[in-house]
Amino acid sequence: MRILVDMDGVISDFDGEFIKRWQERHPEIPVVPMEKRTFFYVKDSYSEELQPLVAEILLGPGFFRDMMPVEGAKEALFEMDKMGHEVFICTSPISAYRNCVLEKYEWVENYLGDAWVKRIILTRDKTLIKGDYLIDDKPVITGVERSPEWEQIVYDRPYNRDVNKKRLTWANWKDVLRF
Amino acid sequence: MRILVDMDGVISDFDGEFIKRWQERHPEIPVVPMEKRTFFYVKDSYSEELQPLVAEILLGPGFFRDMMPVEGAKEALFEMDKMGHEVFICTSPISAYRNCVLEKYEWVENYLGDAWVKRIILTRDKTLIKGDYLIDDKPVITGVERSPEWEQIVYDRPYNRDVNKKRLTWANWKDVLRF
Repeated sequence: MRILVDMDGVISDFDGEFIKRWQERHPEIPVVPMEKRTFFYVKDSYSEELQPLVAEILLGPGFFRDMMPVEGAKEALFEMDKMGHEVFICTSPISAYRNCVLEKYEWVENYLGDAWVKRIILTRDKTLIKGDYLIDDKPVITGVERSPEWEQIVYDRPYNRDVNKKRLTWANWKDVLRF
Repeated sequence: MRILVDMDGVISDFDGEFIKRWQERHPEIPVVPMEKRTFFYVKDSYSEELQPLVAEILLGPGFFRDMMPVEGAKEALFEMDKMGHEVFICTSPISAYRNCVLEKYEWVENYLGDAWVKRIILTRDKTLIKGDYLIDDKPVITGVERSPEWEQIVYDRPYNRDVNKKRLTWANWKDVLRF
């Protein structure tokens, strides 16, 4: 099998890093807790006046580099690889790419190692990438290709619970994918 | 048509920038002129003792950002786009990614504009990308997919003249592709 795996919110703890930075910078403004993150884009969980503060955190140096790995993610990727599957990291940088692009490479090198850097695919359009499965937390993934080759497996998060697709976490991925 | 276009040596003048930097840094050591570049990797045109000097230039800050556009490349891309084709920039960063990755994004923003940044696909394995054509100067392109979806059109360079595939330059691309 060829398995494409997203980064933010799937193998790297986007929300953990966001909450940490928000609480450090704005201890007086309540952070939206994970279980109330019902919109895919974190800014949509905040009022219009607070959205510039959200952007400031996402665009700040180190945000994409400093995220902790999601628990069990590394072990799952290494195990898929060991089982003989072709595993690629398939991730879309944010439009304001200045820190994000390099830091995604640094993150992969740091937490998964050199060999995995070669497996990074940076693209804003994931429908163009060939694979059997795409493990991704984004509820709906669109692009120029109307019939992507892959089947999306939703990485289970509060903001994608209304999507009717196979879903997994790193605690149950082997049962869901039935390799 | 969906057309994937490589960067280095195809739309960005890799060899021009290399020769310029070599002559600035090592005026006493003759540079290998373009027509004698018969190996795909520039280092292979230099003796073993000189190869570290080659690497130093490729890895140095600004190398991938400062390349001039290849003559006619921008006009060709814009025209393909205007004709209704789906055009993506499909490029492989070097392993020592520190400067290269960000600078490729900066180059595209600088010379092609914001809208084209969204069309960048960074991947070490181009066989995974779906498209009708891949315009690339690399003689042989391999990866995990044995039958890539695209047909490679060779961007004509001295180091790929022995490859028996359709070939073009930005002076004759419309005749070759017969759009």
